Amino acid sequence: MKIDVFFSPAEVAEAPVEQRVAVVIDVIRATSTMIQALANGARAIFPTVSTEEAIKLAFSLGREDTILCGERKGIKVEGFDLGNSPGEFGPEVVEGKQLVMSTTNGTRAFLAVEGADRVLATCFMNLSAVGEAISKADDVMIVCAGKEDRFALDDTLCAGALIEKVVEGRESEVVLNDAGRVALELASAYSVSAEFLRSTAAGAALEAVGLDKDLELCASLDRYSFVPVMTERQISVPGGKKKA
Amino acid sequence: MKIDVFFSPAEVAEAPVEQRVAVVIDVIRATSTMIQALANGARAIFPTVSTEEAIKLAFSLGREDTILCGERKGIKVEGFDLGNSPGEFGPEVVEGKQLVMSTTNGTRAFLAVEGADRVLATCFMNLSAVGEAISKADDVMIVCAGKEDRFALDDTLCAGALIEKVVEGRESEVVLNDAGRVALELASAYSVSAEFLRSTAAGAALEAVGLDKDLELCASLDRYSFVPVMTERQISVPGGKKKA
Repeated sequence: MKIDVFFSPAEVAEAPVEQRVAVVIDVIRATSTMIQALANGARAIFPTVSTEEAIKLAFSLGREDTILCGERKGIKVEGFDLGNSPGEFGPEVVEGKQLVMSTTNGTRAFLAVEGADRVLATCFMNLSAVGEAISKADDVMIVCAGKEDRFALDDTLCAGALIEKVVEGRESEVVLNDAGRVALELASAYSVSAEFLRSTAAGAALEAVGLDKDLELCASLDRYSFVPVMTERQISVPGGKKKA
Repeated sequence: MKIDVFFSPAEVAEAPVEQRVAVVIDVIRATSTMIQALANGARAIFPTVSTEEAIKLAFSLGREDTILCGERKGIKVEGFDLGNSPGEFGPEVVEGKQLVMSTTNGTRAFLAVEGADRVLATCFMNLSAVGEAISKADDVMIVCAGKEDRFALDDTLCAGALIEKVVEGRESEVVLNDAGRVALELASAYSVSAEFLRSTAAGAALEAVGLDKDLELCASLDRYSFVPVMTERQISVPGGKKKA
């Protein structure tokens, strides 16, 4: 089994994605928010890059059934229904709805791997379920959303923890790229916690805009056991979801 | 003291470089080759990005005094005098000469930080000397050449080892960015050796083109104690150099 980690969507650039299983991670906060929303009954999430594209898509999908959400510089986009805090996506808000989402880093990561065989979403909240889901794959790419095309420690710890899960259960070798090796090293040195996340660049940026309470949810390990999959630019949970 | 690590020149992108001390690392192999050449009596090295620019500059500097060197895909550029193997740059070849050098990743890293207050070159071969040279700086950026704008383990281990050197000698805190933290973590887990370098993506690529004997020199720690500095696109050793 081969696992390549990419520290930002920019690193994926010319890497082949065909016939590979891609896992997208944006701990602070896009995939944490998506997974919380799906857990609370959202039907599907449409990741978009630009806010203009998001607005257009929300209207074409039918505005009454659609929640327009996302952030720029961590803060809710003017005119959007919601921002990008997992805590905002309670069942009373998202049950039965579809979400159109545009965030600075996370949604771009999904679109960078659109051509992959399967595209899964993870964060700490459903880590073991995704580890199990990819355990039989031959060729996996883990794409960290990063922070404006730079390395981000929160996503890398999550990538390393995911690799740990996969390695644990296997007898045969897992071949890692350079980035995968360093992610695994990081996971053997640190465990996730809200405090750890607060010490990262993304956590500090969130604290600076007063949204660091989100870090508690982002750090909650294996809260759920479902695996979101992206099919034709729609992220949903095939076969439904259940709490861990 | 603040130290920010960048895993590739692309990551530097919009980061401010003014009034900072920049250290450039390309273990496999640009800075290793530069430092070996300077140790063996080369007067100065001119990093250039394109091979066309390198050829033009070599002619304008005076072809008889100038060695045109560098690689593409690890192999000497057609028509150049030398490639990018530190072992090629013996005293009989480089003494008193200037080098115009174009490599895939390393020379770009120097040009990405041109506007910095000071630009230094390091690799394992002069690590402690550079650690000492930056120990009094307030604001340091360590720029890894990486591998085609992706993370490279060899450079990151070197960055982490450099941070270790700086941290060792200090009482006050060293504030690291996310990438700096992971580099330091890596350095506490691994030491450099030719075997370690061979296990990295850059080392494997070198082995694939039959140049892995270079890794011995690239892994030789603190062989020299001089600090190359770039001034106006010329890398040289102010005040001369001495063996460690």
